[in-house]
Amino acid sequence: MRQYEIFEVKIQGEEPKGSQVEIGVKGLFSHNGKEQVVRGFYAGDNTYIVRFYPEEAGSYTYRIEDADGVICKDTQVECCPAAENRHGMVRPYETHFRYADGTWYYPFGTTVYAFSHQEDERVQETFETLANAPFNKIRMCVFPKHYDYNQNEPPCYAFEKTDGKWDVHKPCMPFWERLESHIRKLDEMGIQCDLILFHPYDNWGFSKLSRADALVYLDYVTRRLGAFPNVWWSLANEYDLTDYEMEDWECFAQFLHDHDGWGHLLSNHQIVRPWDFSNPNTTHICHQTSELNFLSEQITKFQKPLMVDECCYEGNIPWDWGNISGFELVHRFWTVCMQGGYCTHGETYLNEEEVLWWSKGGKLVGESPARIGFLREILESLPGPLTFSGKEVTKESFEQMKKTIPEEMRQEPFVKLMLKLPWEEARGMANAGRELAGNCGDDVYMKYYGRHRKSSGTFVLPRENRYDVEVIDVWEMTRTKVLEQVNGEVQVPLPGKEGIAILARKR
Amino acid sequence: MRQYEIFEVKIQGEEPKGSQVEIGVKGLFSHNGKEQVVRGFYAGDNTYIVRFYPEEAGSYTYRIEDADGVICKDTQVECCPAAENRHGMVRPYETHFRYADGTWYYPFGTTVYAFSHQEDERVQETFETLANAPFNKIRMCVFPKHYDYNQNEPPCYAFEKTDGKWDVHKPCMPFWERLESHIRKLDEMGIQCDLILFHPYDNWGFSKLSRADALVYLDYVTRRLGAFPNVWWSLANEYDLTDYEMEDWECFAQFLHDHDGWGHLLSNHQIVRPWDFSNPNTTHICHQTSELNFLSEQITKFQKPLMVDECCYEGNIPWDWGNISGFELVHRFWTVCMQGGYCTHGETYLNEEEVLWWSKGGKLVGESPARIGFLREILESLPGPLTFSGKEVTKESFEQMKKTIPEEMRQEPFVKLMLKLPWEEARGMANAGRELAGNCGDDVYMKYYGRHRKSSGTFVLPRENRYDVEVIDVWEMTRTKVLEQVNGEVQVPLPGKEGIAILARKR
Repeated sequence: MRQYEIFEVKIQGEEPKGSQVEIGVKGLFSHNGKEQVVRGFYAGDNTYIVRFYPEEAGSYTYRIEDADGVICKDTQVECCPAAENRHGMVRPYETHFRYADGTWYYPFGTTVYAFSHQEDERVQETFETLANAPFNKIRMCVFPKHYDYNQNEPPCYAFEKTDGKWDVHKPCMPFWERLESHIRKLDEMGIQCDLILFHPYDNWGFSKLSRADALVYLDYVTRRLGAFPNVWWSLANEYDLTDYEMEDWECFAQFLHDHDGWGHLLSNHQIVRPWDFSNPNTTHICHQTSELNFLSEQITKFQKPLMVDECCYEGNIPWDWGNISGFELVHRFWTVCMQGGYCTHGETYLNEEEVLWWSKGGKLVGESPARIGFLREILESLPGPLTFSGKEVTKESFEQMKKTIPEEMRQEPFVKLMLKLPWEEARGMANAGRELAGNCGDDVYMKYYGRHRKSSGTFVLPRENRYDVEVIDVWEMTRTKVLEQVNGEVQVPLPGKEGIAILARKR
Repeated sequence: MRQYEIFEVKIQGEEPKGSQVEIGVKGLFSHNGKEQVVRGFYAGDNTYIVRFYPEEAGSYTYRIEDADGVICKDTQVECCPAAENRHGMVRPYETHFRYADGTWYYPFGTTVYAFSHQEDERVQETFETLANAPFNKIRMCVFPKHYDYNQNEPPCYAFEKTDGKWDVHKPCMPFWERLESHIRKLDEMGIQCDLILFHPYDNWGFSKLSRADALVYLDYVTRRLGAFPNVWWSLANEYDLTDYEMEDWECFAQFLHDHDGWGHLLSNHQIVRPWDFSNPNTTHICHQTSELNFLSEQITKFQKPLMVDECCYEGNIPWDWGNISGFELVHRFWTVCMQGGYCTHGETYLNEEEVLWWSKGGKLVGESPARIGFLREILESLPGPLTFSGKEVTKESFEQMKKTIPEEMRQEPFVKLMLKLPWEEARGMANAGRELAGNCGDDVYMKYYGRHRKSSGTFVLPRENRYDVEVIDVWEMTRTKVLEQVNGEVQVPLPGKEGIAILARKR
């Protein structure tokens, strides 16, 4: 047993009589006076497995039971401290993410929805691509995808059929073995697996499981995958396009929370109506949106980390969500990151084989990944995550501000107009000075000017420190030191082009 | 007297005793049994002028009167038909603009707010630039501008002062002579003058005239400039930033309508809250906005022509409204024009002299004008103006559509979601298929794909005709014929880059 790695106990027995999911096998793991019950799963071939994920090093005692009593009596095992490259599960920390060992985790995700539903050769190719790509998270579906450019049948399905119908009580073992081998490999590569549990692009009926059947499916998922440190639960891709109602989703979230054993990250992805991120089982905000300018409001509102898990893909397909430029996608990454959020990549370049990265994987051919890597490198070189520090006027602060404006300013034309406009109309102008600016305490200040081609930028830097200032070209991937040892109000000369950021770092 | 050109009668007299604006001199012009009363103006130096603009050729009789009776008795004059290059006043025609002689006028405007408030040398330079630029409309202010990069005093002011205060009853004649010489020269160059009557960027008090004083000012403006065929009334630049209330603006619009003699184009420009374009004296829609995707709704709503008279400027200044790229501005022009609207240019490149085109004129250095000229050339080569033909779902059509969806489609995931969403949430998805598409009857079909880098486009062309299809690169200014003699559903191969339009023309 090693800290932050799956520990597995295998037991031979008889095939379950009824459900192959709802079985009584469980492990009881004790450590430091705390006991954790871990439900086992049937793995086929008369084999039962209990998977445990040790969060701490030290002495553990475990025993395995089933409904009839103890199968494997108390066993002592020593859990070694984590290997150097293992940091544990990613969890929210304030409005960002950290590994269990305290290392910051900044998600730079990509999207390969039908990753696991391709033939082995393709999956292998995708792994090779990922090995050389800047991504540390992948969004992928449990169920196969039926959609444009996705007409191929998967090698296998999640369930066997009984009387011609999917039988959620009979997991298809080769499917789960294959899926978990992919997740394990991702884990070895340091890639978080944002596992999409439901989605509407269905040709087989997996999106139409009854709530009861869906819970059986989630039962198996949590028994089998709950101990994987790199698994996140994405309730759905575009939850609002499925037949499930809000109470179904809340029920699924509650079930996962209660049964996954380790409190994995959990969120839900929409096509139109954002999920309710105040849901107590939801660990972070997840948006599909191209409107990225006011995301920081969401972080302020929910006090949870924010992911934009879909903001259109670099590509050239006829669908408008899949034909933005590499520059535009990189621009969106910077826009999100400067607000203290995180963004997810996808690529949809047509090719003769119709192997588009966004669903099937394969090779990346776009221009954005290198630049996303450049951004990741910069953010990871900072002492901590960025907190949005642009002047943001919200409805609340606007109403407050209106009350506190001194009498002598109330006749100033802009102020006068603001005072008479309702918030909906005032919002744009009230936020005209809102910059995409972030900071790490007083160590680092950053701004990103997006598509605005300023000939100069500005910082107001604490006078008690001295800073070096760099100009960053997000596309050319250059960093140029332009000022040294400055503080106070600083003018930064800029090249007057799109995609320029500035960074001030305390000496 | 010549059709479409100003006809002027000058009378020597004594200086007015009181107001130099509210004088009794007027001309009565008869033609074809219709009589038109034209108010004269005092031009200084004991000179009174009555200006008439003949819309038709033929025989005219006129006499000049003042409060005391006839000054100049009935005089016959023959009005020659228009010179070949004169087309008359521009007026709305349905949701577009036409000259009086029926020639289409497609506005391609630029912005030089303080054009007339620069020294002669600069004004001359601006004229030279305009002579080689693609613009046929200019937005410029009567009153000088005080703002960043606009700190210079104008050569003269609109009024003289009495007791240290602007006296609207004493027009400053050199000012008006200079202004009208500029307007006349613009007219000779075929450039419409969108004359901004009020604006808030004031250092002299011109934005603070009482309503009564403002009406005296407008009285003089209409007497003096009403016969200029190329004058449009822009009530204000950013009317909602001034102290005037809605009823002031309505009063100004009514006054102009009642007194300008020829029904000049009239609109009003906002910073936040758009003017009420249903105002009966308002001839066209005028917006300051960067949100250009749903403009056609405005045209449908008001059934008037639409101008986007400010959508940010090509430049590199620190203010975000003045640092978009040439490409972005060209993209915005195409976006507006494909919806059957028109767009206005501005340029704000910093230079040492602080002579920025957007206010002072001078030289153009940007990349957009050539491309705007390319667009103008294309539109002017069409048989008529473009009508928006993208599939637009409005709140009304959405509610209607919801009622008429056949039962069997109501379970389809997208339909089901649409059916349960309120309009505000549904709008984006309901319009996901909305294209920037326009047509001239069945002669020409166009689409513009904006920043979407499709590898193929589509047309559905009438089967009874045959069309040649061109791919247009709006930035490289190339037109490439890719299909000949096609009709029906047509796939158009595209280069998968930003700024691509397609055009199908009936053979």
